[in-house]
Amino acid sequence: MRSDRADVGFIGGGQLARMSAAPATALDLRLAVLANRSDDGAAQVLPDVTIGDPGDRNAVEALAARCDVLTFDHELVDTELLERLEAEGHAVRPSSSVMRLSQSKRMQRERFRALGLPAPEFVVVDDRSNVADFVARFGLPLIVKADRGGYDGRGVWTVEDLPALDAMLDELDERGITPILEELVPLERELAMQIARRPSGEMRTYPLVETVQVNGMLRELIAPAPEAGALHPEARRIVEAIAADCAVTGLLAVEFFQSNGKLLINEIATRPHNSGHFSIEGAITSQFEQHLRAVLDFPLGSTAMTAPWAVTANIVGGPSGDLLTTQVKRVLALDGVHLHLYGKDARPGRKIGHLTVLGNDLASTRSLARRAAAIMHEECGDD
Amino acid sequence: MRSDRADVGFIGGGQLARMSAAPATALDLRLAVLANRSDDGAAQVLPDVTIGDPGDRNAVEALAARCDVLTFDHELVDTELLERLEAEGHAVRPSSSVMRLSQSKRMQRERFRALGLPAPEFVVVDDRSNVADFVARFGLPLIVKADRGGYDGRGVWTVEDLPALDAMLDELDERGITPILEELVPLERELAMQIARRPSGEMRTYPLVETVQVNGMLRELIAPAPEAGALHPEARRIVEAIAADCAVTGLLAVEFFQSNGKLLINEIATRPHNSGHFSIEGAITSQFEQHLRAVLDFPLGSTAMTAPWAVTANIVGGPSGDLLTTQVKRVLALDGVHLHLYGKDARPGRKIGHLTVLGNDLASTRSLARRAAAIMHEECGDD
Repeated sequence: MRSDRADVGFIGGGQLARMSAAPATALDLRLAVLANRSDDGAAQVLPDVTIGDPGDRNAVEALAARCDVLTFDHELVDTELLERLEAEGHAVRPSSSVMRLSQSKRMQRERFRALGLPAPEFVVVDDRSNVADFVARFGLPLIVKADRGGYDGRGVWTVEDLPALDAMLDELDERGITPILEELVPLERELAMQIARRPSGEMRTYPLVETVQVNGMLRELIAPAPEAGALHPEARRIVEAIAADCAVTGLLAVEFFQSNGKLLINEIATRPHNSGHFSIEGAITSQFEQHLRAVLDFPLGSTAMTAPWAVTANIVGGPSGDLLTTQVKRVLALDGVHLHLYGKDARPGRKIGHLTVLGNDLASTRSLARRAAAIMHEECGDD
Repeated sequence: MRSDRADVGFIGGGQLARMSAAPATALDLRLAVLANRSDDGAAQVLPDVTIGDPGDRNAVEALAARCDVLTFDHELVDTELLERLEAEGHAVRPSSSVMRLSQSKRMQRERFRALGLPAPEFVVVDDRSNVADFVARFGLPLIVKADRGGYDGRGVWTVEDLPALDAMLDELDERGITPILEELVPLERELAMQIARRPSGEMRTYPLVETVQVNGMLRELIAPAPEAGALHPEARRIVEAIAADCAVTGLLAVEFFQSNGKLLINEIATRPHNSGHFSIEGAITSQFEQHLRAVLDFPLGSTAMTAPWAVTANIVGGPSGDLLTTQVKRVLALDGVHLHLYGKDARPGRKIGHLTVLGNDLASTRSLARRAAAIMHEECGDD
């Protein structure tokens, strides 16, 4: 028997930890997962799983004690606890300060401003004295974001007029959530870029990708982003600046708006991310292998693409049981569709998997991905 | 909690079951493994593992009872038990009769002869009456093979002269092993081809590959086999004939000698095989995903390659512990090397992993694979 030591401990057992299992197996790295439930995506496929709340100090401490490195499937972690673990000498990657940044849209926005990086104009509503001025300068509609958290599963709202804005601010005030007002920029499309950075400082960027969002959820992704031209080096400059300035370890995803032909930072995620799922087949080193390499301070892998084009479609809601099996078989009958299911029960609006198609020309690649996604979405009322 | 049902039960928990974990996770298929030891390759990475002997009827029956399909990591199984399970309605894939064939070199040779497929001339030595005639016809040296099993970890020997032949036949006789004499053919190179077949009858062949053997173990593989020309359709004809005639379900690998410009069948394996490891990155559908699809009677996937060339090198013996980690880091620093470790303790001569490199031209692809393999083999005294 081996000991119960693990190389990497994941706080959270969702699909990101689940998809890390394959590269961990290939590199003979042992993963340990702290999962909320035994039917979490990663808990279904890994042997070393502890069921517990990521906010449970004892559970997190026990995981840290037997792992070389602690990392994260999601941001819902106690950063004070992480700080204490760091003080005790545990390797927490990304660090508590990066996780604190990832939890706070306010801190992110202020950091981007301090770095001189392009992002929509914003104001933090500590009291309401600055609201009228912001509305006067940027008009309506505008965007309201919760600094952290949110409610009803959302943290971003568009408000059309002043009464709606007042009502939203009252609502957030009652819930003790700090609002951020953000200008509604003219949106041409959404883009994203990932970067990996390891403690040694080595960094590798993935190609700039185009993302198509539906109801705030990524529905389709094209890698590389078509006709991106000079946006590619500009995106690279931005993600490198953030990764280096924040001393990110692991994967960082930066989501962009393309507005008036320029990039504006929308959101960041300091972990593997939906915008990098194409890399499992579409890049020489998948984001999941790269994240493991990065948090272990191993050399990073090539981020070059394996084909001219990759198109990923998310599978949302959808069928379950026999119907799911039927649809899976129909999709597998289409040559060249790479299917990834997350082991989730289907529920309307819930992301239960994704699929990726690689190809030499964008039109046929996208067409096959859409055809496969349509099969997976049939009869689930969510297309 | 889910039930303890599994989609596919593997008898044997070696690296083939281990490398099946990744595609099983992607397709949300549940694997259950009957492994000899808790530190077997697959037992380290899968949650549903029973420790037990593959010859233990109760253990195999218990596995069959809770799996939709039973399949195999190796051939060391009790075919009578499999036959009984089939009679009880369990799906055993490949079937007991295919597993019986895979265990007996004699049955294989006789089947190939009946099918008119090219293979070296042979004679089964039931008594020694036919030995002198065979030696007279095909000369010395010649090859002695054990019908099944072998000893000292070997089942194939080259004998140079009549005294050596007599001694070998005595030795096998004492051990109750039926010998097969085989002509020693002039060998230009060794080749292999894999095919997948599912119960519906659908078949898909992988590219013909060239294999370089050292001490009877595959050391390097090139896909596709260079300058194979007309050998490719001929190999395809042969593997399709075997798969269809034997009603193989799952993967079948056929190893060939190229002799006087023609193909001769050397060995077969009715499971995923070392000659198909390149397919993890080098083919659209890896042999491990394909085997799962085939035994579940799902549509088979494309076997087209993802790059013009793939070169795989086995990692044999080698270092362990800190030295292994140091060498892994050095290999990961080489862009484009895909490393797969099997979670085995290093031991001289033991296969502990493989690596694959893809590329647009053979020389540089092979050169990088060799460079990476040399790093993994440094200081282990096995190169």
